[in-house]
Amino acid sequence: MRLRNKPWADDYIKDHGQYILQDPNELKGQWSTIFNNTNPIYIEIGMGKGQFIVESARLNPDINFIGIERQSSVIVTALEKQVALDLPNLKFLHENGQDLTDFFEEGEVDRIYLTFSDPWPKNRHEKRRLTYKTFLTVYEKLLNSSGVLHFKTDNRGLFEYSLVSFSQYGMVLDDVYLDLHKSDFEGNVMTEYEEKFSAKGNPIYRVHAHFPKNKSADSSDK
Amino acid sequence: MRLRNKPWADDYIKDHGQYILQDPNELKGQWSTIFNNTNPIYIEIGMGKGQFIVESARLNPDINFIGIERQSSVIVTALEKQVALDLPNLKFLHENGQDLTDFFEEGEVDRIYLTFSDPWPKNRHEKRRLTYKTFLTVYEKLLNSSGVLHFKTDNRGLFEYSLVSFSQYGMVLDDVYLDLHKSDFEGNVMTEYEEKFSAKGNPIYRVHAHFPKNKSADSSDK
Repeated sequence: MRLRNKPWADDYIKDHGQYILQDPNELKGQWSTIFNNTNPIYIEIGMGKGQFIVESARLNPDINFIGIERQSSVIVTALEKQVALDLPNLKFLHENGQDLTDFFEEGEVDRIYLTFSDPWPKNRHEKRRLTYKTFLTVYEKLLNSSGVLHFKTDNRGLFEYSLVSFSQYGMVLDDVYLDLHKSDFEGNVMTEYEEKFSAKGNPIYRVHAHFPKNKSADSSDK
Repeated sequence: MRLRNKPWADDYIKDHGQYILQDPNELKGQWSTIFNNTNPIYIEIGMGKGQFIVESARLNPDINFIGIERQSSVIVTALEKQVALDLPNLKFLHENGQDLTDFFEEGEVDRIYLTFSDPWPKNRHEKRRLTYKTFLTVYEKLLNSSGVLHFKTDNRGLFEYSLVSFSQYGMVLDDVYLDLHKSDFEGNVMTEYEEKFSAKGNPIYRVHAHFPKNKSADSSDK
């Protein structure tokens, strides 16, 4: 996306510490205290302007949502939405996806969303893709025993890459949608990108996957 | 496909026992004798009219190809092609995909092709899909330690189903192509269906996958 320079962004972020949490040492393992309940925690890594997570939080008051975005000029747009809505089940982190183990205890997260992540199409940028194995290692730590990863994109190359990356890492695919808007999937919340790209008739790809340790833990619980 | 009644098919098949092999007891574990060499063995399950496997055999004389098809009225078209070409590295089996352990020793096969398999879209027909788990059990037995499954189709629902079926079974995806003819894949040999459907602009889906026991055996060999 085109990133406009917003000189006021950093001040605006600092002024809203109740929505964009600042101190990692006060967060890790403390999310149920922060939200003041033990509801499931869903996070979105790279939430951009936040339409998806804000709308998801609005529609699902019994789930706690945390949107993560490292770009100041983008996260402020999500913040503006939350300033207007003041949803009690929505917080933001102005951080990098690679550092999330600083902010979450192992197994503290129930679901991870990746939506329309930067495809980084050049091979030499593979390590920057949010579905590269080093990120999967982080997600595996964050997710609890029944945790799942939901990923959607319009980028064919990134989706092909990600299916293989998940599988080679040992993740198990639960659902695959190769044209989400023509599928029977219910309850899809659109991102800004999704509205734009699907209006052009491009297919949206979606996959749900889990880590195998979760699978076995899940089975033994039943 | 529309199956024309061909009353002469069964006689034509019987008359060409050098191409369509008849006696399973003389085949299992004997394929290198039948082909008179130890070249790799690639099989196609549900080859239909055989354009893909006949062309593949013609292009790759150092690989042995075996096309399998249970429908008499279809396999005869493949047979007619082979009668004209008399390729030494191509044989056919007039059999059902579920019975293949009768015809192959464990690990006797290097590659399995599934091309444009019947999608059996109704849920109650799931067990008939060639990527259903009971078939995967057969493929796992047939393939050797470095063996791979190559699957392509234009049917979105079948491809979505198959990716999940492979993954849930424990297979590992090596490559995924969500629009094969727009990808950088080289050496694709088209089937009759593929020519027809891709001409309409529909994407062709392709995946390469292997069974994990093969992966570990493969690694230890190196």
